Amino acid sequence: MNVEQIKTPALLVYLDAMESNLRGMADFFRDRRCKLRPHFKNHKVPLLAWKQIHAGAIGMTCATLREAEILVEHGIGSILIANEIAGQEKPERLADLSRHASVMVAVDNRHSVRDLASAQRNRNAQIEVLVDVNIGLNRCGVGPGQPALDLARYAADQGLVVRGIMGYDGHLQAVPPSAERDEIVRQGSKAIVESAALAESSGINVSTIRSTGGTGTYAVSGDYPGITEIQAGSYLLMDNIYLSRGASFQRSLTVLATVISTRGAQHAVLDCGVKAISGERGLPALKEMPGAQVTALHAEHALVELDLQVSPQLTPGQKVQVWVHYSDATVNLHSQMFGVRHGELEDVFKIEH
Amino acid sequence: MNVEQIKTPALLVYLDAMESNLRGMADFFRDRRCKLRPHFKNHKVPLLAWKQIHAGAIGMTCATLREAEILVEHGIGSILIANEIAGQEKPERLADLSRHASVMVAVDNRHSVRDLASAQRNRNAQIEVLVDVNIGLNRCGVGPGQPALDLARYAADQGLVVRGIMGYDGHLQAVPPSAERDEIVRQGSKAIVESAALAESSGINVSTIRSTGGTGTYAVSGDYPGITEIQAGSYLLMDNIYLSRGASFQRSLTVLATVISTRGAQHAVLDCGVKAISGERGLPALKEMPGAQVTALHAEHALVELDLQVSPQLTPGQKVQVWVHYSDATVNLHSQMFGVRHGELEDVFKIEH
Repeated sequence: MNVEQIKTPALLVYLDAMESNLRGMADFFRDRRCKLRPHFKNHKVPLLAWKQIHAGAIGMTCATLREAEILVEHGIGSILIANEIAGQEKPERLADLSRHASVMVAVDNRHSVRDLASAQRNRNAQIEVLVDVNIGLNRCGVGPGQPALDLARYAADQGLVVRGIMGYDGHLQAVPPSAERDEIVRQGSKAIVESAALAESSGINVSTIRSTGGTGTYAVSGDYPGITEIQAGSYLLMDNIYLSRGASFQRSLTVLATVISTRGAQHAVLDCGVKAISGERGLPALKEMPGAQVTALHAEHALVELDLQVSPQLTPGQKVQVWVHYSDATVNLHSQMFGVRHGELEDVFKIEH
Repeated sequence: MNVEQIKTPALLVYLDAMESNLRGMADFFRDRRCKLRPHFKNHKVPLLAWKQIHAGAIGMTCATLREAEILVEHGIGSILIANEIAGQEKPERLADLSRHASVMVAVDNRHSVRDLASAQRNRNAQIEVLVDVNIGLNRCGVGPGQPALDLARYAADQGLVVRGIMGYDGHLQAVPPSAERDEIVRQGSKAIVESAALAESSGINVSTIRSTGGTGTYAVSGDYPGITEIQAGSYLLMDNIYLSRGASFQRSLTVLATVISTRGAQHAVLDCGVKAISGERGLPALKEMPGAQVTALHAEHALVELDLQVSPQLTPGQKVQVWVHYSDATVNLHSQMFGVRHGELEDVFKIEH
């Protein structure tokens, strides 16, 4: 089946590019002590998670309890929820899930620790945690050093199993690599490793995991002594954002769209708006159409302007492709991803929600 | 069941506010010749479409063929797809759908007309169209007057049934009402009505429908002589955008979220990012928390800053609500909407995709 026969708007993944990214990242980690635990939130496709594990990943990272449940349903046995949960219902679901797989969750506050400890007692389960350290993103995480040690001790006292320390350098994913930036990345890794060492020297067991890093920083933090695993996810599918930041992977994701209207020769309208392709971090760009520019995304429409010096005209009914700008939020809008090779549909991947 | 027991992030609809909006709009149209054909794309809930029809709406407007199919599956028999379709597959699906209900589609170009005529022949069906006129949004639509007449004639010559003329004043939805703006709204309605009159006087049958208007403009175009129906949709659920533009309806939509982390007393993190609440048109605002401000939406997190002079502190595990800023794109992120009255869960509405 030819790509153009897929009904629009549709999310396409170029398999050659995706597989090249899969191999490239696996090659980086093959002979390193540090390992890859890829982030599931970016693609939400269990089959792709399995491809990552087959290529050497030690398990999966995810952002939500729901994602962890999906991974366990699909047979994946080692999971890190690199995010906080709180309240009653989610900790109890986590406790139940912990009977079926090794599922660790990040903690950064005593309320959550007590919620987890309470769920653990109520459900007669054993919950595993990583202490989440703020290494500059200023989102979640306790301070490194003493605050991390204190929380690890508190978690252990409450009966949780502390498996290690994590910190996410999301603020540095946006910065292109440079000697200066790389040094800041290493400072983050250092804060994690030293927090763990401080805890251990104070007699607090923080086990063996030291997790950090993303697609923009894995090459630096993956080489930092003592960091044991990396949480990168976007490398597999890639998007315009990471490309513009200099990540050394290939974009594999487009949205296939149909031209539904034209106004004069220079304006065209596509059937893909913000319900099919995210504009949350900027406008997407047309594939293989220099001179064509997406100027606005409405709910159901993309507005395109053409520079006819370099771009051919568009005709209603014609299919075009738009590079995904922000893969995380775009994948989330779809329930399937069409795998394409040499212009033909080869696979349909179910995106789980 | 108390609202706070719903797992987060969850989309809530306040039933009292929603029903008040339903009645308010129905009252406006009750004794008018112009009628309401509400837009389905905003809520995507067939049960709410039925409530709108029960309150007096003459059918539903929608943005996509898929939405029309959903409406027909749910027994709704009169539908306007206020948008263009093109190519082979969608026109043929439309032709098939036309056997089960009255489904009109907008046309603004000869390519689409030929695609529809071809589908009509292949499927032995009868397709009904409205000529879409550009009344200033500069998205889809032919020019009013002669171009509209020419396209109507062409569609009739190709064997399509021309049911009328439409034009959407999306660019004016964003402008608060004023004498000057209202005059521009009337100019748009006039362009539609006069295009129809010109066609009729030239012997082109453009039947009886003259459709326009949205939640921001219905009160003006709904009173314009000759306009027969209004496409407003957002009035039912409302959002911050329409509220800020002075629309006289109540906001009914929030996202229920859990505080998962705090940093000091002034910073909190909620478990609702752009995968649960749209930031495409601006950041949302917390409900009943003066002094609390959403400062950023990440993929899975909302970052909140608190002014402790007026706002209480937040605690991990606590539930809060966030007013939806852009209802169209937010509803699209969910598969259900929880109906709430007096703090209790009363209904769960399935959102169809």
